[in-house]
Amino acid sequence: MVLDRLQQLTLQVNASSPPPHPFDPLSTAEIDSAVAIVRKEHGQLNFNAVSLYEPRKAEMMAWLSDPENTLRPMRGAEIVAIAPGGKVYDGIVDLGQSKIVQWQHTPGVQPIITMEDLQEVEYIVRQDPRVIEQCGIVGIPKEDMHKVYCDPWTIGYDERFGTDVRLQQALMYYRPHIDDSQYTYPLDFCPIFNAETKKIIHIDVPPVRRQLSKAAPNNYHPEAIEKERGFRTDIKPIHITQPDGVSFNVNGRHINWQNWNIHVGFNYREGIVLNNITFNDKGNVRPVFYRLSLAEMVVPYGNPEHPHQRKHAFDLGEYGGGYMTNSLSLGCDCKGAIHYMDAAFVNRAGASTIVKNAICIHEEDAGILFKHTDFRDESMVVTRGRKLIISHIFTAANYEYCVYWVFHQDGTVQLDIKLTGILNTYAMNPGEDTHGWGTEVYPGVNAHNHQHLFCLRVDPNIDGPSNTVFQVDATRGAGEVGSAENKYGNAFYAKKTKFTTPAEAMSDYNGDTGRTWEMANTNKLNPYSKKPVCYKLVSREVPPLMPKEGGLVWKRAGFARHAVHVTKYSDDQIHPAGRHVPQTSGEPSQGLPAWIEEAGPNSSIDNTDVVLWHTFGLTHFPSPEDYPIMPAEPMTVLLRPRNFFTRNPALDVPPSFARTPSQVAAGGSACACKKNDGSSVLV
Amino acid sequence: MVLDRLQQLTLQVNASSPPPHPFDPLSTAEIDSAVAIVRKEHGQLNFNAVSLYEPRKAEMMAWLSDPENTLRPMRGAEIVAIAPGGKVYDGIVDLGQSKIVQWQHTPGVQPIITMEDLQEVEYIVRQDPRVIEQCGIVGIPKEDMHKVYCDPWTIGYDERFGTDVRLQQALMYYRPHIDDSQYTYPLDFCPIFNAETKKIIHIDVPPVRRQLSKAAPNNYHPEAIEKERGFRTDIKPIHITQPDGVSFNVNGRHINWQNWNIHVGFNYREGIVLNNITFNDKGNVRPVFYRLSLAEMVVPYGNPEHPHQRKHAFDLGEYGGGYMTNSLSLGCDCKGAIHYMDAAFVNRAGASTIVKNAICIHEEDAGILFKHTDFRDESMVVTRGRKLIISHIFTAANYEYCVYWVFHQDGTVQLDIKLTGILNTYAMNPGEDTHGWGTEVYPGVNAHNHQHLFCLRVDPNIDGPSNTVFQVDATRGAGEVGSAENKYGNAFYAKKTKFTTPAEAMSDYNGDTGRTWEMANTNKLNPYSKKPVCYKLVSREVPPLMPKEGGLVWKRAGFARHAVHVTKYSDDQIHPAGRHVPQTSGEPSQGLPAWIEEAGPNSSIDNTDVVLWHTFGLTHFPSPEDYPIMPAEPMTVLLRPRNFFTRNPALDVPPSFARTPSQVAAGGSACACKKNDGSSVLV
Repeated sequence: MVLDRLQQLTLQVNASSPPPHPFDPLSTAEIDSAVAIVRKEHGQLNFNAVSLYEPRKAEMMAWLSDPENTLRPMRGAEIVAIAPGGKVYDGIVDLGQSKIVQWQHTPGVQPIITMEDLQEVEYIVRQDPRVIEQCGIVGIPKEDMHKVYCDPWTIGYDERFGTDVRLQQALMYYRPHIDDSQYTYPLDFCPIFNAETKKIIHIDVPPVRRQLSKAAPNNYHPEAIEKERGFRTDIKPIHITQPDGVSFNVNGRHINWQNWNIHVGFNYREGIVLNNITFNDKGNVRPVFYRLSLAEMVVPYGNPEHPHQRKHAFDLGEYGGGYMTNSLSLGCDCKGAIHYMDAAFVNRAGASTIVKNAICIHEEDAGILFKHTDFRDESMVVTRGRKLIISHIFTAANYEYCVYWVFHQDGTVQLDIKLTGILNTYAMNPGEDTHGWGTEVYPGVNAHNHQHLFCLRVDPNIDGPSNTVFQVDATRGAGEVGSAENKYGNAFYAKKTKFTTPAEAMSDYNGDTGRTWEMANTNKLNPYSKKPVCYKLVSREVPPLMPKEGGLVWKRAGFARHAVHVTKYSDDQIHPAGRHVPQTSGEPSQGLPAWIEEAGPNSSIDNTDVVLWHTFGLTHFPSPEDYPIMPAEPMTVLLRPRNFFTRNPALDVPPSFARTPSQVAAGGSACACKKNDGSSVLV
Repeated sequence: MVLDRLQQLTLQVNASSPPPHPFDPLSTAEIDSAVAIVRKEHGQLNFNAVSLYEPRKAEMMAWLSDPENTLRPMRGAEIVAIAPGGKVYDGIVDLGQSKIVQWQHTPGVQPIITMEDLQEVEYIVRQDPRVIEQCGIVGIPKEDMHKVYCDPWTIGYDERFGTDVRLQQALMYYRPHIDDSQYTYPLDFCPIFNAETKKIIHIDVPPVRRQLSKAAPNNYHPEAIEKERGFRTDIKPIHITQPDGVSFNVNGRHINWQNWNIHVGFNYREGIVLNNITFNDKGNVRPVFYRLSLAEMVVPYGNPEHPHQRKHAFDLGEYGGGYMTNSLSLGCDCKGAIHYMDAAFVNRAGASTIVKNAICIHEEDAGILFKHTDFRDESMVVTRGRKLIISHIFTAANYEYCVYWVFHQDGTVQLDIKLTGILNTYAMNPGEDTHGWGTEVYPGVNAHNHQHLFCLRVDPNIDGPSNTVFQVDATRGAGEVGSAENKYGNAFYAKKTKFTTPAEAMSDYNGDTGRTWEMANTNKLNPYSKKPVCYKLVSREVPPLMPKEGGLVWKRAGFARHAVHVTKYSDDQIHPAGRHVPQTSGEPSQGLPAWIEEAGPNSSIDNTDVVLWHTFGLTHFPSPEDYPIMPAEPMTVLLRPRNFFTRNPALDVPPSFARTPSQVAAGGSACACKKNDGSSVLV
């Protein structure tokens, strides 16, 4: 018997033993199998995405609570494919049954722009006679067209072209030498590329032309630095080693570390997805989060001159934070003892691909975890902390986003994002006025104002799925100074406002009250404080969306209108700017605004399965020190346990040094040490 | 010839070769000498402080710019002494001339409460019959008085007792066993101690009594943890080593590291003081800050019930961040290769004392400094950062403050503060309502709401002393959506408001505009951006002072009324809540409000020598996980160069990995490595 390719693949998938965990991303074999199943029925297609069809939560919760006696959730692949002519299909394949369970043509949408989609534009741009003509106008001769480069972006949305034709805009640059940074030589015009016909269909040319800059290159590559003043020679090495190995266990894609258990997933869109996060509280395994991910982002630029309004990348929804992820084996991106995980994707032709070492998992020393000295006798305890970091880095054309999910011993989950890479730049003439919309970071280089707004999706599971969100504001007590109830004026308290509906939950940051938000389980009170167990969202980099209400970005990026939205959980609500983001008009707004409208703004989100969407980020007014490559700028969001534990859950971390009053009294400098290291050295 | 003690000391001081740098704190010999000089003239005194009389800035700037040909500023000691009967004297001693150059009785003030002042209260409290009586009332028998403890605080201000008598309030606790945490057993009454007569002069007793808690101890010392579930055993060591030593040079108290040069001072009050901070910009040594310090703080508690309004410690101005500093040799507080500095103080009897290893200076890996990958060919550069950390830790009764001054290679200066230690606690009866003013963190333990508000004093020297402060607000562009000037509504810019007077400069944080403040030298423009060179204050933990306007804390902590104040530089304006803080009534407010009134709220601060005062911190609503010892909670303030450099000043940091497009094209995975370490290990 000769097995056909599909049968072989099916056997390969099903033979894998043990079966993948339902949260595991698809393996290359599963991707190949899904493609073969689709191909068999639907013939030639270009594949845009083949990714885990995530288990339905109800089934999954049942299975998690009793895997022995519960039906395993269907192992599925979610498919996005584009047929010749540009028809988009959304489908679901049941990998266990080797069959397509859903297949539909989705009209009027454009799925994600893949790296392959991006890669082909530059070649075509260089050949296009009108582009060559425009290059000539700004001072680039025909024979130098190989020195012309472009960063292709999805067009975003341009009302002249609508949504039906798959388009990219080519942000144009020039390199005097292949190793020069092109961002020093932006060109002033913008070709529009039709991905279906592979043709330039239009060029946006500004009313005022800017000639190619004559400034010297401004480079960051080693050869350039060597030619200037060379590298500094006074940095002595720091070695970070773990001679006994790491403190975490890896079981499949589950990480067990310091009472935490986390399933580490990954997809083409959000990058890292963390599932079923639990904390072992003295033997009691308590659920904390069902799912955490960075679900979307938008980077609006602030220059109102046409066509810069099109610069507002949804890097996750339009390109994919997973698709753009770096292989961390190439750079020494982490330090210490590292566990890597790969990421599997599909390419356009339907073959599985691998990014090696896409996810980095490692520990770091976290400084002092707690310390106290009694001033009477210098009895003391000092305990060092440790943290676990699960990270990936993705490159969105010019920018780099470094995403770090950090777990602490005290029950805190921290999301750190570092921004680095290169500013998006535009041409400017000598003496040209930026009108405040940007900064001349180098002669002829205008770096426009912009924001980086990220949407963190939190699916809380605080001692169970029925949770309630509260807004918490530091508030002055009633009673004026001198009154009986507040004589000295010092009264203040935490004012808690329950969000009972999605409409109430649309809330903004308030620096004046140090606003935080609590995800609470009101069915379970802390035995001491009598307050509901909860996790608190502490986030301080929360600028409002600068683009105005009713404008293009406001319409397309509905999630960014408020710092917090809360919705009732629904399996299909993962992407807050919509499932297919490129070329959405925002009329009507997709994702969050549509879901809230659909569920009813006044429907109940009290004591039920909810999802909290948090938009945070920063507003960036560039300056020359950000150029030609930007020193990493960090941002932090915290999820902190409050009234969740009955005491500091890290008390049993061995101290670096401790001595009790009775030890001091006994005259010893007794060190009841359970040292977790011993490398302090006096110099 | 027989030299007397004073002559010996004078010789000792003057014989020191080379002479101390004018910014250096006083040595023990200098302290001893100053005391002897004062003693000779004024006889027996209790010494409260003997500290560097800082060189006058005009003289110092002249000397710094040409030390060879300029008179060395006077080496002086600033003295605070208390004569029998409680008369307070402020004086200045010229150490070079061995003479007193200023000596005055300062009526109506109370200088700092020293550790010695604090230490004597507990003994007296235990002997006092009325305290013994009160202990009996709450359930502590006479024979257990050795189990009664108190944290003495300055009384703060109590209008019943005023300022003339030096008073402390004793926050009362009980320990069932010497090693038990007393904070689990707060007592409900508060004795007032007269420091002059060493007597309890009053006891504040609440209208509702609370009996001594019967709850089991809640301890964090190793013996307690061992008795419970023991220590966790799954943390593997992390070793951080620098086999070739550190990257910084220490010259006296100057630290030279990665283009930074910093003089590290220390005093009894502010703790670490950093002076004359410069950055070597490609051979050009550029001044950045003349002086940086944490100058004051206040911790108001939010319970309006008498006498809790008195709980609002000015930890620096009332006790001294230097006096309370930890010897870091006792605990393994830092990791890696460490350079320590000692701190010298005077004791009450006038003898010099030393805290060994008061300041820790060390380097840490700082993760990715910058990275970029070209999506076309995976040419890339990734460079790791390093940071220098100058830190100390002080214990203010129950709390610990860990202060980290962090210097980055990209020109950023970062102040990190970590809060740890133990919550201040008060007694509560079973079932008692906290009224929202606190949280029951353990049975019978009420931890009151509070704020930690710090005042950072920045004396900028941005390419010279003539600086100007601007407020910067992200602001939407003019023109409604659809208008010609802002068709898509995406326009936004950085609105800069110049502070020309101290009145204008009293400014609050604005989260809606992501407000920052720039310290600029308007006489020097960045050659590319044409904007003034500046350093930007980026601070996001900026709660307003919760105590109400006109109330006790508002009056006493004038600095905390606004996030930013700006004053014209004056040599004697260091302490924003006033020179002598204990028992100030706030009528009139001392420090910042007085100085601004004095200089004129409408006087000019434009393009002159200015000081920026920044109040930041957090509002803390306790929860059980903060108890019995609090996991460290961090805060960060950044001072970032903007338009100061012409490019990223860290480009010459050797990359971890780099390859250019031409190297990729040549087919090599060429690594133009100047690796600054080599310890990545796959596990």
